[in-house]
Amino acid sequence: MQKDLDLSFLFSPRSVAVVGGSTGMAPYFLTDLINKGFEGRVYSVNPNKNELVGLKCYPTLRDISEPVDHVIVAISARLVPPLLMECAAKNVKACTIFSAGFSELGTEEGRRLEKEIVDISGKNGLRIIGPNCMGIYCPSTGLHFSADLQEKSGSLGLICQSGTVATYLSRAAPLRGACINKAVSYGNACDINESDLLEHYTQDSDIEVIAAYIEGVKDGKRFLEALKKAARTKPTIVLKGGKTEAGIATAASHTGALSSSIQVWNAIMRQSGAIPADHLDQLIDLSLLFLCTPPCVGRRIVMVGLGGGVSVLASDAFETYGFSFPDLSEQIKAGLLRFSSAPGSIFKNPVDTAIAFKNPDAMEDVLRMLNDWNEVDLLLLHHGYDIPGGGRAQLSTAIGKMIDATSVISKPAALVLYCAADPESYQASVQDQQKGWAGGIPSFASMESAAAALDKFVWYHQRKARHHGPASSN
Amino acid sequence: MQKDLDLSFLFSPRSVAVVGGSTGMAPYFLTDLINKGFEGRVYSVNPNKNELVGLKCYPTLRDISEPVDHVIVAISARLVPPLLMECAAKNVKACTIFSAGFSELGTEEGRRLEKEIVDISGKNGLRIIGPNCMGIYCPSTGLHFSADLQEKSGSLGLICQSGTVATYLSRAAPLRGACINKAVSYGNACDINESDLLEHYTQDSDIEVIAAYIEGVKDGKRFLEALKKAARTKPTIVLKGGKTEAGIATAASHTGALSSSIQVWNAIMRQSGAIPADHLDQLIDLSLLFLCTPPCVGRRIVMVGLGGGVSVLASDAFETYGFSFPDLSEQIKAGLLRFSSAPGSIFKNPVDTAIAFKNPDAMEDVLRMLNDWNEVDLLLLHHGYDIPGGGRAQLSTAIGKMIDATSVISKPAALVLYCAADPESYQASVQDQQKGWAGGIPSFASMESAAAALDKFVWYHQRKARHHGPASSN
Repeated sequence: MQKDLDLSFLFSPRSVAVVGGSTGMAPYFLTDLINKGFEGRVYSVNPNKNELVGLKCYPTLRDISEPVDHVIVAISARLVPPLLMECAAKNVKACTIFSAGFSELGTEEGRRLEKEIVDISGKNGLRIIGPNCMGIYCPSTGLHFSADLQEKSGSLGLICQSGTVATYLSRAAPLRGACINKAVSYGNACDINESDLLEHYTQDSDIEVIAAYIEGVKDGKRFLEALKKAARTKPTIVLKGGKTEAGIATAASHTGALSSSIQVWNAIMRQSGAIPADHLDQLIDLSLLFLCTPPCVGRRIVMVGLGGGVSVLASDAFETYGFSFPDLSEQIKAGLLRFSSAPGSIFKNPVDTAIAFKNPDAMEDVLRMLNDWNEVDLLLLHHGYDIPGGGRAQLSTAIGKMIDATSVISKPAALVLYCAADPESYQASVQDQQKGWAGGIPSFASMESAAAALDKFVWYHQRKARHHGPASSN
Repeated sequence: MQKDLDLSFLFSPRSVAVVGGSTGMAPYFLTDLINKGFEGRVYSVNPNKNELVGLKCYPTLRDISEPVDHVIVAISARLVPPLLMECAAKNVKACTIFSAGFSELGTEEGRRLEKEIVDISGKNGLRIIGPNCMGIYCPSTGLHFSADLQEKSGSLGLICQSGTVATYLSRAAPLRGACINKAVSYGNACDINESDLLEHYTQDSDIEVIAAYIEGVKDGKRFLEALKKAARTKPTIVLKGGKTEAGIATAASHTGALSSSIQVWNAIMRQSGAIPADHLDQLIDLSLLFLCTPPCVGRRIVMVGLGGGVSVLASDAFETYGFSFPDLSEQIKAGLLRFSSAPGSIFKNPVDTAIAFKNPDAMEDVLRMLNDWNEVDLLLLHHGYDIPGGGRAQLSTAIGKMIDATSVISKPAALVLYCAADPESYQASVQDQQKGWAGGIPSFASMESAAAALDKFVWYHQRKARHHGPASSN
């Protein structure tokens, strides 16, 4: 049976049934569907209960008289094949199989069960996400795979082989400003796999940036083509899980992923033009940058903030990644001195100044002047929370004014809001980050993470400018 | 005049006077002295005010009839030399000069002013911390250089050229379990410098671990000797600020530090046996490890936690740093299966299991079994906050039981408490970290940071075992 190549139907089912008991994940899936604005019908299927989280239980799928588009399966692995037969009979379009216990076990029984569900899927055109996965998060249609996910929809498309990683990214990325349009945790990928999702996200105009966590690919050739096309169409960031022997072995037991060598993987990444992420939080750093920041093809930075030691460490971090700090022109230096001449300030680049503290109303003029300085490509502002002097109120005013003032910036720019160690500072920093990205300026938690991400960001735009510039055609 | 080589007097003055106006840092220094348990007398000196933060102001130092041991100077640079003459006349033992505007300016005037204070210091045996610094934090005697520092004393000795960095480390390290015994922010180091402080901390039995942030050294030969002796006596961790051209230039304008090339610096580090930190938070990671964890000379890890993707990324991170994951013995595997056989678990190493969630009371037995397994050197436990399923209450119980159960561990061990993205999770994670280190188990925020710090920790202990072992003498 021909499978549908457009996966839009996955993200907007008219009705969802959750099949599972009261001690597993079924109650959580049901609660999310009920509480998070899903507009379709929700059914609970459980032969042993009258109700679950206040919802009537149907003994079997057959007992539901209305059509069911999507089924979330949270039952024992050995019960899954007969359930899929029922799904096929009821013309269900797709299943999310949360249940684990398939090929990832590495046992004969696990492989047999997975083959059985693949066969049922293929014969009946029933699409499967998983098994061994969390399924779909799509805030615009109210599909949530975990509690505490934001209901606000964004422009990031997330493809994620691991459920824990998918949940972390889906919670953490929006808190930092990278709100999610669609996220799929796809586990063993027995049917819908990384290439299907890449292809779908590539043509999905609601998605501006793609971020993926992948342990192994099903079909290397197809994947390379899908990744190339994705990366040509929109920024596509990939974190590979399983780059070392130990990692590859762990991935095999996790999602049954068969990794090729890291050399092969690196070659795929190089050919594709996708952006490799080094670790989980860099996947968020990069997503945020590509969502927020206008293209940047140069590496000349002007940095402004308070703290000499921080400026020293920032200089080290950014020079290590190939950025430079042009000397301030006499005009800029004179301009800065007009706004602040407090002792302890350094009127070199990086500029160490207490302007934000002492004369916050001047921040806008300072930033306008730096934005207009034509010898730099990028503005970097930093402020700490656990820094000398001042109380929280003064600090909060200073940071607030600094972030407000960024509205005059038209060049690529970023904030480093560091040193939020105690919970109260952390809370303030999360709020300030939100103010920042709402105004188009991404925030980072350290100079090192900002430098590493900006390096990849500029690399991407330089490569793109070469390939699409007048001197070359691609 | 012969200077005192023992610096104990710096940390336990009988009385402190703060000289400065109401708009600078003087009110903050005074407030800290009054509120943070300093037992000596506190004086405010200000010719233009009757009182500051409720304290009577003396017009000059001379007007104070009692002796003054320590003076904190927060006035304009050009007024500092005459004040120091007054200090000398009053037999003040030491000054902290917060004021900036000296050699770090790179101007003739700045250099002249600094030379002037160095001369006054030398001729009168008046010791100086600074200028351009925050001075002393010593919780046991109630000296605090910033608000919001912990009053609990610990065993970490901090040497820090930058005031912002000193404040951040003094706030963040204790929150993670590395409580501070003494911290000195020493700025331009015109008198008391990094070598003086290293030498003092080396023989100070209250200090178990030394952590230093240094931009430049005053006397390379003396520094190497001091660092060697420190590193032989106790773990000594050093972060260099100014490793690149841009960083070195920034350091020169920040504290007037003259950095030699990074090659020279690296040679000093290699010869000394000190532990180099790569960035600010690694300085805390390492301090915590050396304060909490028994020596570890092997790299065989057993890891237990929930989350397959996290296990894959952990395997990558730790193998990259030279650690290995021995295969579980049949006995261990059978033991684990006795406690949990939930689908989705992986009974390989790293072990991916929901034991902490599903059967938290079994954690103690599991950890006892792994602690006794003689094929591993190190136990690593991990748990996430933003992970699938469960509510916060269930999660909190699971993590709590896991941390409680670590009491049976006698081997080196560490926790990775990751994925605390939203402020509520962050707060919970800070509390759980405290429970961990109170029981002797340090916590890290990511697999990458844990692996990088543990690599240096094991390197240190392996080196020490070689040098002090039976086959060698040093």
